[in-house]
Amino acid sequence: MDPLVIFTPSGKRGRFPAGTPVLTAARQLGVDLDSVCGGRGICSKCQVAPSYGEFAKHGVTVAETALSDWNAVEERYDRKRGLKPGRRLGCQAAIQSDVVIDVPPESQVHKQVVRKAATARAITMDPATRLYYVEVQEPDMDEPSGDLERLQAALAEQWQIDTHALRVDLPVLAKLQPSLRKGSWTVTVALHRGHGDPQERILDIWPGYFEGRLYGLAIDLGSTTIAAHLTDLRNGEVIASSGVMNPQIRFGEDLMSRVSYAMMNPGGDAEMTAAVRAAINTLTDEIAAEGGIAPAQVVEAVFVCNPVMHHLLLGIDPVELGQAPFALATSSALSLDARDLGLDAMNPAARIYILPCIAGHVGADAAAVALSEEPDKSEELVLVVDVGTNAEILLGDRDRVLACSSPTGPAFEGAQISSGQRAAPGAIERVQIDPATKEPRVKVIGCDLWSDDDGFGAATAETGITGICGSGIIEAVAEMRASGLVDASGLIGSATQTGTARSIPEGRTHAYVLYDGTADGGPLITVTQGDIRAIQLAKSALYAGARLLMDELGTDSVDRVVLAGAFGAHISPKHAMILGMIPDCPLDRVTSAGNAAGTGARIALCNRAARAEIERTVRAIHKVETAIEPRFQEHFVAANAMPHATAPFTELRKAVDLPDPSFNTAGETAGRRRRRRA
Amino acid sequence: MDPLVIFTPSGKRGRFPAGTPVLTAARQLGVDLDSVCGGRGICSKCQVAPSYGEFAKHGVTVAETALSDWNAVEERYDRKRGLKPGRRLGCQAAIQSDVVIDVPPESQVHKQVVRKAATARAITMDPATRLYYVEVQEPDMDEPSGDLERLQAALAEQWQIDTHALRVDLPVLAKLQPSLRKGSWTVTVALHRGHGDPQERILDIWPGYFEGRLYGLAIDLGSTTIAAHLTDLRNGEVIASSGVMNPQIRFGEDLMSRVSYAMMNPGGDAEMTAAVRAAINTLTDEIAAEGGIAPAQVVEAVFVCNPVMHHLLLGIDPVELGQAPFALATSSALSLDARDLGLDAMNPAARIYILPCIAGHVGADAAAVALSEEPDKSEELVLVVDVGTNAEILLGDRDRVLACSSPTGPAFEGAQISSGQRAAPGAIERVQIDPATKEPRVKVIGCDLWSDDDGFGAATAETGITGICGSGIIEAVAEMRASGLVDASGLIGSATQTGTARSIPEGRTHAYVLYDGTADGGPLITVTQGDIRAIQLAKSALYAGARLLMDELGTDSVDRVVLAGAFGAHISPKHAMILGMIPDCPLDRVTSAGNAAGTGARIALCNRAARAEIERTVRAIHKVETAIEPRFQEHFVAANAMPHATAPFTELRKAVDLPDPSFNTAGETAGRRRRRRA
Repeated sequence: MDPLVIFTPSGKRGRFPAGTPVLTAARQLGVDLDSVCGGRGICSKCQVAPSYGEFAKHGVTVAETALSDWNAVEERYDRKRGLKPGRRLGCQAAIQSDVVIDVPPESQVHKQVVRKAATARAITMDPATRLYYVEVQEPDMDEPSGDLERLQAALAEQWQIDTHALRVDLPVLAKLQPSLRKGSWTVTVALHRGHGDPQERILDIWPGYFEGRLYGLAIDLGSTTIAAHLTDLRNGEVIASSGVMNPQIRFGEDLMSRVSYAMMNPGGDAEMTAAVRAAINTLTDEIAAEGGIAPAQVVEAVFVCNPVMHHLLLGIDPVELGQAPFALATSSALSLDARDLGLDAMNPAARIYILPCIAGHVGADAAAVALSEEPDKSEELVLVVDVGTNAEILLGDRDRVLACSSPTGPAFEGAQISSGQRAAPGAIERVQIDPATKEPRVKVIGCDLWSDDDGFGAATAETGITGICGSGIIEAVAEMRASGLVDASGLIGSATQTGTARSIPEGRTHAYVLYDGTADGGPLITVTQGDIRAIQLAKSALYAGARLLMDELGTDSVDRVVLAGAFGAHISPKHAMILGMIPDCPLDRVTSAGNAAGTGARIALCNRAARAEIERTVRAIHKVETAIEPRFQEHFVAANAMPHATAPFTELRKAVDLPDPSFNTAGETAGRRRRRRA
Repeated sequence: MDPLVIFTPSGKRGRFPAGTPVLTAARQLGVDLDSVCGGRGICSKCQVAPSYGEFAKHGVTVAETALSDWNAVEERYDRKRGLKPGRRLGCQAAIQSDVVIDVPPESQVHKQVVRKAATARAITMDPATRLYYVEVQEPDMDEPSGDLERLQAALAEQWQIDTHALRVDLPVLAKLQPSLRKGSWTVTVALHRGHGDPQERILDIWPGYFEGRLYGLAIDLGSTTIAAHLTDLRNGEVIASSGVMNPQIRFGEDLMSRVSYAMMNPGGDAEMTAAVRAAINTLTDEIAAEGGIAPAQVVEAVFVCNPVMHHLLLGIDPVELGQAPFALATSSALSLDARDLGLDAMNPAARIYILPCIAGHVGADAAAVALSEEPDKSEELVLVVDVGTNAEILLGDRDRVLACSSPTGPAFEGAQISSGQRAAPGAIERVQIDPATKEPRVKVIGCDLWSDDDGFGAATAETGITGICGSGIIEAVAEMRASGLVDASGLIGSATQTGTARSIPEGRTHAYVLYDGTADGGPLITVTQGDIRAIQLAKSALYAGARLLMDELGTDSVDRVVLAGAFGAHISPKHAMILGMIPDCPLDRVTSAGNAAGTGARIALCNRAARAEIERTVRAIHKVETAIEPRFQEHFVAANAMPHATAPFTELRKAVDLPDPSFNTAGETAGRRRRRRA
């Protein structure tokens, strides 16, 4: 009988004639063993670890001579680059007798990448673009086929790739002939095969065996910031993350003001399109430099964004998204060339995938959150809230998923706040206020001490205290409410009412002094009535959206809540609940998902099947339009109070010992009148 | 029984319930009846002509009331645009009783277009791009699909078009929303469906019903000239033809000098690519203006060209085509976007089809000649010769077709000739020389008289006589040979040898004075020894190529000869045979095919199946490489004489009464020596 070969961890087994290379056996059994060079001893991706001795479980005994001797190719490879002890090259080692062979994770093509520690969920690597090394037949005058046609034949023969509809862009085709000759009739090609894409494409070509790697960008294109993860397409590893401000901000802070800009200014949409594309090009260059790779190694990008960003990225006037019925130009997922979008910093042939939009107000970012958090697979009723400048809200379980979007504005990100600033050293990021004395203590970015700790002054001497970032303002407002500085309606009390000189007049209202650095020429950092109102509007919008979905589903409660986006990054969940930003739920059923939209983008970048999956899922999601729903307005008004009347946070109020908001607002108003008369 | 409907000329028949519109019946029977608006009484493309009375042949009697009364839609159409007498709109006229209905040619989608009077061959219209009028569902907030997705659904429902993989370029997508709203949820789209193309594409979109037409360019991209036919994609009509010089001429007259330029000058290939693309853009603008259409109505272009032009058009360095084994970067047919080639004068979404190349020296122009002349369908052995700056030669029959290319140079087109000029008023285009007196008579372009006719001087007073064009030089050389001014080796005799003072010394050789205008300040137009040599080289190359293919096929004769390209246009077949340009064949079996490459391009433009056909045909053509074939050199040298020894043109010599080349070449040489000593 032929020798028995057992592969672990798959457990796949079969008998092969003595002399069969391990890689050949693996391929015939469908074992997931990588190879870029196709078994020519060049790429070393097919490394395996044979085991020797007795394996009762498998019923085999493996002799030391089960594989052929270490050969010249392996020796050369080991000398030049080093092979780990116990490792063999699968394409060189031949089977001699029964053997058990382990395929280590790094030799698996479809290795699983743990992407979230919290849920231990894994994604399987199956990117759309992969490298293939091929040996191409030399031209023959008697059979005058083109070099490309012979490359196609080689891909079909050596890699079983159907190249019937293969597409090669002209600039890549122009590189083919010199590459083949420089590589002595061997080349490595980056082959892209999108899910459901009718054409395979050669995105790039290198002479001989290409040592480098291919990368993709997962881009979360937000109204305020553009964040990107530079991801290794072989193993899913994020080698650099970076973000830039969305330069469209100069045309309008929020989505509707950008739509207005497009409506009021002929060519305004084109201006915004050019601005965001230029920013993505800059970001691509920066993140490639940060990751130490050539921008041309970026061969794919996946975008998630809201519908207005989506249309402006595509160069489509977003005017229809500003008025009922909020018709999208296109709702489907899009597979494009990078150059279609003017994204010329990455590889000239790079491919773009944009997740589908759910509706005119519920975009590809919500789809990405759904891909990441999978409410459609949840046994329990889960509320997923992703906060950026807009909030994307999903509610559902495996039976049904609803989605809506709510215009929270950028307040949760610290924008449009009087002393607001971006998260940078010197920015206040944590706030606690003593309920008795009303005195604050703060922490600033770049320093681990609280402001009342010894040495805080020295530690922050260099940066100073410069303003409040997103998380700081949320905590400040929540603490002001919890300490009785602010009443249930959101009004800041006067010094008389609150009993602290930190309540100072500010126009017709009051402000609370969080930090006074004026004595040393520093800033006076206050939380103004306007800041409170901005946060109130934002949290009311968020709450109303969630309530609207609950109404639609006929429920008053949810089993669990997943907080994503600015939550976690900028907003402490505890303080969010004090403010009444989200419906009631036991505290231990509230989890943070980080940048769920960005994670969804990364999943779509690494796994083609995930793209098909989210396209199916999105079609099944039921969309609820907040903008024209009267109940949204009702919920919005009702949610204005802190905490609002409709969903008392009993547990939370106890936890933070929320005092009674007892100061007299009528008196405050009278006080204001007096000041005006003065 | 339901009424019987018989359609002519197809003869298709069927029974339909009374009240069925004629268009509906036609569609169900698969009758070729056009419609752009889908039966909404807008486009009037479905006009039919009902016949009344007794039709013994069909066994029916058609009553005057066989169709429903003329209705309001038809009345309005007739009032506004006029309906020919006897015509009805197929979508409006309903069947009432048995009827015979004729579909006139202009109402047939796949109408046949007679393209060649000579062979009466027809091509069936089946262009890749057609207009479709669709009514699109308005957006609905409860079903928030994109406008594009609803357009796709409408195309599927109203036109049975599978839009699964529909592609819409972003600039077209950007026009979708305003077009739908301006057209009150109706639009006309230009839909492109290439043969074997995996994706259908919307190339353009117009609000409501688009009155205009779509056009395509059939472009013959030659080394010396770029010729284009602007073709109506509905009926195949050529509405304008135009040509420009190929500006690459400044980098080299012939192909090999351009390849050399690319080899010697870094970036030289890119310069030539830019030059030819710019020329095509200019040509597109000019031909559109000439045809009175908007350049954006040009939605397709088909290119035929030799391999060097092919690579330079694509932006591929042609260096490999300059050296054995003459490897093409790609040999397959190419379907591209116009913008891939920088062709931005036509519609921004226009599609390009480039015919396949046969081999490194036998290009898409030869493929186009094969498509036009169909040697692969010939019962007889046919030799097809297409002369431009290169000659494309095909030899074969339905069993086997061989092809080669021969570097004739531009002499046949009148280039590189001492008194050569382009074909314009004042250029000598016809020449006759009296064998006895050796006196010439000529005709010039722009005048119907011969130079010895009364009134010739007055008729040419304005233009003058300025030079010799392509056809003129061929006739001049042939007549010089026929009248004994030139010997079999191609040497021009001295005045002493030829007995005419028109033989004048020219350096170390002689020239023949065709026209002397110096007395009036005009030019001295001569045929020099260099001119004779250029023509000899060209004709030897052509003849040697044809002989090589005959050797390969093991034949000494061919059944018929088809002359194309410069033949007919610039070269009189009779004189070509005097010169021994082509192998022997009975004169009545020699036909002229005009611009066969251009015709092939037009066929591919008008008919998708023709594209698939030529791709199949090209794979079966056997290529013979002249450049490295020793026998080609042998044939070339042997063919230098006029006429050469290996294939005496007995019949022709009789026909033109070819005198014996009796002057003494040794004496001539002695005469030259004498002059040098003087």
